[in-house]
Amino acid sequence: MPQPPKPETPLLDRVRIPSDLKGLSDSELHRLAHELRAETIAAVSQTGGHLGAGLGVVELTVALHSVFDAPKDKIIWDVSHQSYPHKILTGRRDRIRTLRQEGGLSGFTKRSESPYDPFGAAHSSTSISAALGFAVARDLGGPCDTGHGDAIAVIGDGSISAGMAYEAMNNAGHLKKRLIVILNDNEMSIAPPTGAMSAYLTRLYAEAPFQDFKAAAKGAISMLPEPFREGAKRAKEMLKGMAVGGTLFEELGFSYLGPIDGHDLGQLLPVLRTVKARATGPILIHVLTKKGKGYAPAEQSPDRGHARARFDVVTGEQHKAPSNAPSYTKVFANALIAQAADDPRIVAVTAAMPDGTGLDLFAERYPSRCFDVGIAEQHGVTFCAGLAAGGMRPFCAMYSTFLQRGYDQVVHDVAIQRLPVRFAIDRAGLVGADGATHAGSFDVAYLANLPGFVVMAAADEAELVHMVATAAAHDEGPIAFRYPRGEGVGVDMPEKGIPLEIGKGRMIREGGRVAILSFGTRLSEVLKACEALEARGISPTVADARFAKPLDRDLILRLARGHEALITIEEGAIGGFGSHVAQLLAEEGVFDRGLKYRSMVLPDTFIDQASPTAMYAVAAMNAEHIEAKVLSVLGVESLGKRA
Amino acid sequence: MPQPPKPETPLLDRVRIPSDLKGLSDSELHRLAHELRAETIAAVSQTGGHLGAGLGVVELTVALHSVFDAPKDKIIWDVSHQSYPHKILTGRRDRIRTLRQEGGLSGFTKRSESPYDPFGAAHSSTSISAALGFAVARDLGGPCDTGHGDAIAVIGDGSISAGMAYEAMNNAGHLKKRLIVILNDNEMSIAPPTGAMSAYLTRLYAEAPFQDFKAAAKGAISMLPEPFREGAKRAKEMLKGMAVGGTLFEELGFSYLGPIDGHDLGQLLPVLRTVKARATGPILIHVLTKKGKGYAPAEQSPDRGHARARFDVVTGEQHKAPSNAPSYTKVFANALIAQAADDPRIVAVTAAMPDGTGLDLFAERYPSRCFDVGIAEQHGVTFCAGLAAGGMRPFCAMYSTFLQRGYDQVVHDVAIQRLPVRFAIDRAGLVGADGATHAGSFDVAYLANLPGFVVMAAADEAELVHMVATAAAHDEGPIAFRYPRGEGVGVDMPEKGIPLEIGKGRMIREGGRVAILSFGTRLSEVLKACEALEARGISPTVADARFAKPLDRDLILRLARGHEALITIEEGAIGGFGSHVAQLLAEEGVFDRGLKYRSMVLPDTFIDQASPTAMYAVAAMNAEHIEAKVLSVLGVESLGKRA
Repeated sequence: MPQPPKPETPLLDRVRIPSDLKGLSDSELHRLAHELRAETIAAVSQTGGHLGAGLGVVELTVALHSVFDAPKDKIIWDVSHQSYPHKILTGRRDRIRTLRQEGGLSGFTKRSESPYDPFGAAHSSTSISAALGFAVARDLGGPCDTGHGDAIAVIGDGSISAGMAYEAMNNAGHLKKRLIVILNDNEMSIAPPTGAMSAYLTRLYAEAPFQDFKAAAKGAISMLPEPFREGAKRAKEMLKGMAVGGTLFEELGFSYLGPIDGHDLGQLLPVLRTVKARATGPILIHVLTKKGKGYAPAEQSPDRGHARARFDVVTGEQHKAPSNAPSYTKVFANALIAQAADDPRIVAVTAAMPDGTGLDLFAERYPSRCFDVGIAEQHGVTFCAGLAAGGMRPFCAMYSTFLQRGYDQVVHDVAIQRLPVRFAIDRAGLVGADGATHAGSFDVAYLANLPGFVVMAAADEAELVHMVATAAAHDEGPIAFRYPRGEGVGVDMPEKGIPLEIGKGRMIREGGRVAILSFGTRLSEVLKACEALEARGISPTVADARFAKPLDRDLILRLARGHEALITIEEGAIGGFGSHVAQLLAEEGVFDRGLKYRSMVLPDTFIDQASPTAMYAVAAMNAEHIEAKVLSVLGVESLGKRA
Repeated sequence: MPQPPKPETPLLDRVRIPSDLKGLSDSELHRLAHELRAETIAAVSQTGGHLGAGLGVVELTVALHSVFDAPKDKIIWDVSHQSYPHKILTGRRDRIRTLRQEGGLSGFTKRSESPYDPFGAAHSSTSISAALGFAVARDLGGPCDTGHGDAIAVIGDGSISAGMAYEAMNNAGHLKKRLIVILNDNEMSIAPPTGAMSAYLTRLYAEAPFQDFKAAAKGAISMLPEPFREGAKRAKEMLKGMAVGGTLFEELGFSYLGPIDGHDLGQLLPVLRTVKARATGPILIHVLTKKGKGYAPAEQSPDRGHARARFDVVTGEQHKAPSNAPSYTKVFANALIAQAADDPRIVAVTAAMPDGTGLDLFAERYPSRCFDVGIAEQHGVTFCAGLAAGGMRPFCAMYSTFLQRGYDQVVHDVAIQRLPVRFAIDRAGLVGADGATHAGSFDVAYLANLPGFVVMAAADEAELVHMVATAAAHDEGPIAFRYPRGEGVGVDMPEKGIPLEIGKGRMIREGGRVAILSFGTRLSEVLKACEALEARGISPTVADARFAKPLDRDLILRLARGHEALITIEEGAIGGFGSHVAQLLAEEGVFDRGLKYRSMVLPDTFIDQASPTAMYAVAAMNAEHIEAKVLSVLGVESLGKRA
């Protein structure tokens, strides 16, 4: 693809780090914002990534870096989908066209990437907690490499509705430290927001016409008493009178300021300057923005340009590689829709990820049986437990990495009570451009050690269909099935899912000397490795375990006893499938007599973003690594690349 | 101890299940409450347990069971410390003196124990999510064994301040299902509540003198329009005018009713009857109670009689067995206090458990360096990450089972960023009377597979002192140390903690044939087993691993290569220490040549409450089991009990 022409950015070209903004006039800052927006669009058109969120905070980014002094002042972007303009202004413009690429800039803020990223993010709603930590460390005199100044959390209206953000505000309101929270209210996180909090935020400004905000903001500043410290209570009264609402935040101990127009530097700059000069305790500035602002194809898209493949700047058209097989996500959604047709007890729950989990398709078909609980995994899991106790068959569809948010609820409310909640775990394994923060590495370990849990992994998209049917039919207790990001391998699809026998694997090919027992989608790489091994006279036996729990004891012991070597492979960290197999082999005394046993698991590192294939190369889990493992276990010298 | 006389309870004697309350007059219900309180005190004086919470809800329990129809109506007690009076009224009075004993009633609600316990609890803040699940299942026609009626969550002011409860209210306010939340506001959970929410609740009724509530409640009912359905908005306006406050809940989509006096059946009964007759969407009833109500020794205690050992009913004096060694909790607290004396960067964070974690002692000494974030483990962990990023040395002190609530934050905010948060994990392993819900079984598995984590377990209380010092000195990344509930083993205590070398275990005794590698406090049982084995001519080698991560590779490989058999033991589920050892042995090819390897881990069941020793007997982890394991691995016939 030809590279699009770079936009003209004479002012931006003079800005390398935030201190370069200090000499600019307000009207120059206005022009800078314009250039920053153009540069953001141009960069993301080449790399793909989160476009809409960044475009929504261009003016806010300029205003923050103009008024505050990063990296001494800690600007913490919640989730940090919106951090691309921040990266451009903080010494990373020269690498902005490497976003989300292997070896390039992360799509999120990252401490190891820049001193201007004081706290990495990628999962939502962490920013206020982190900012409060910085504020307390500052007031206690903690030594910080970059010094200590203001702690500023920028958090969206979707993120602030999560329990964790509420916990942080509750604590901050109590501690009364100087802390700045900017509520970036665009009425749109990944999906349209849901929940009562969202409705409340809308009510906060529904009564004030947008054109009044500028006057309101100016009024706010002139009304702020000098000194703020001594007149805090009076100031609060006055602000309350000025602001359209805000009582909920005030009840949590925050001063509330807003709402103001987040695309108007004429409002942002004076408000931030005043806050910087005069704030004492925790203050929340309510800023209204538009996701995708200033780029018509994003503004007009239903998701406001949330995440984009590479695209044509002029038309907005995305360049997506044609796919040969349906995505696992879509296969799951369609299989669940099919199951639900025959079973009115099936319901589905997502935590603010209807698109990502495919439940948007389910909701179209069964709107009254699909629940988006918002960014609220803790509640979502226990809500499912309640649904199951009430006689429903709930499918809790979450990414592996986000299910971590509901882990205690999985243990305490689901597993201990043996309630038949079905966990559909998407994005299991390494996920590509989103990198380490979104890797689904730990779910097998943290679920398979829970008594009474059934844990499955689909080897391909046809298996996934059967696992959805298996989960639907399983009323005896909790059951989980995991599947990766991306497209299936292109196998024939069954007309209908057939429930699998619980705890039974399947033989894929019979061979000799070495048996490879695969759990999940590495199976296709295993079979590729076998082709290469055949050429060297080695014909491995291959089986698909299907279940990490309960294990197929007969199959595993047969493989162990009938082969010189047994190798397990899974797209997960240590403690999962391979560890359960090893425990079985140990207890059965198989190791007593000697067995060349190896367990291929994700390595003990967080792997940075790259293509999934490249990430699995780092993890040493592609066909060539499996081949090498077999050769080394059998003591056959590898021919390496000469083969 | 002589059993105290049973109180006179003529009315209560006629009540076996809640339907027996239906014929009673309001004045009889008043007398019944009196008898129920006496019976609760008498029972807990014999068993020990959570006294104060139950005494605070005696009238509420009577009122709920009188007005509503359990088990069709689902009454869900949050945390369920307060469920003893409920148990007495729901067919379990004959077993109430077995509370928290082996084979007896659970100290919490439990689905498998009674159809009147629709949802088990023990960790806080789950009740609204579960109740919403029941409400949705009801409206979708889900088949429930006990039928479907109202869903009622009874939640304390401490529990409702957790993020999860907020998530649930946010979702419930959005879904608008009929749902009843009773806020049991006693201004006292386990510790005095903290946070802005608590201050807000106090403000809600601060302006209304207590004696006015009765009139207010009566007024509320007379003002409720008929039919409620058609006049919802008007009713809300009126209620708002009547109620002292409540806007925060109203902003989340709940009708707010209260506050009312939770010890006055004259208020409780008419309010609940009106709500039952007329409520449509979600409604929150704000009830003021006094923890420990009606029992002077509890009311006058600083913790309002939260948890009690067996006690004398007349004097309130507790019967505690004299202890020979300090508790691990206290050893931790004193060791941390000592470290903090030399290091102003050390701070400590607890999530509403200052007593349980020993941080109350730390807070006395260093009040400005100790933070109780409330029931908010998610925020607590990320707050620690922020503190660490800001240059402090935070100790995050949580029970193993509660740290599960902050798991994603441990992964995403601490581990991925390699921030040096120190996790002090109390109640690791089996915990006794609190049973399965409080067991700390999974922490080693869910922490040791995180890249860059250091995971330790203390073998005794002296080791714990050194591990506190080790953690304090470790600035390279996250570090955790775990220790059990209860008293130490009575070893000599060091004057001062000395940092251990990271990843190095220690030899305890040199022997032959079999090596036992212990991780944690099973070491004393291992040594007992060795004494018994010596008598049979078997002298095991014993080592204390100290670290599950990084493993002491040299030590482990030396043990494996120098012995016929290697046995690991830990107080944790599969996937933890033993799994890491097995992975090392597999990768090093040790199994290729044969090794009698066994890993003793907690069994794949949730173990009900009993004494810790009895629970470890179920888990097959006491000295006799270790001895039997050694004998079976070596092929020596066990002499069993004849020995």
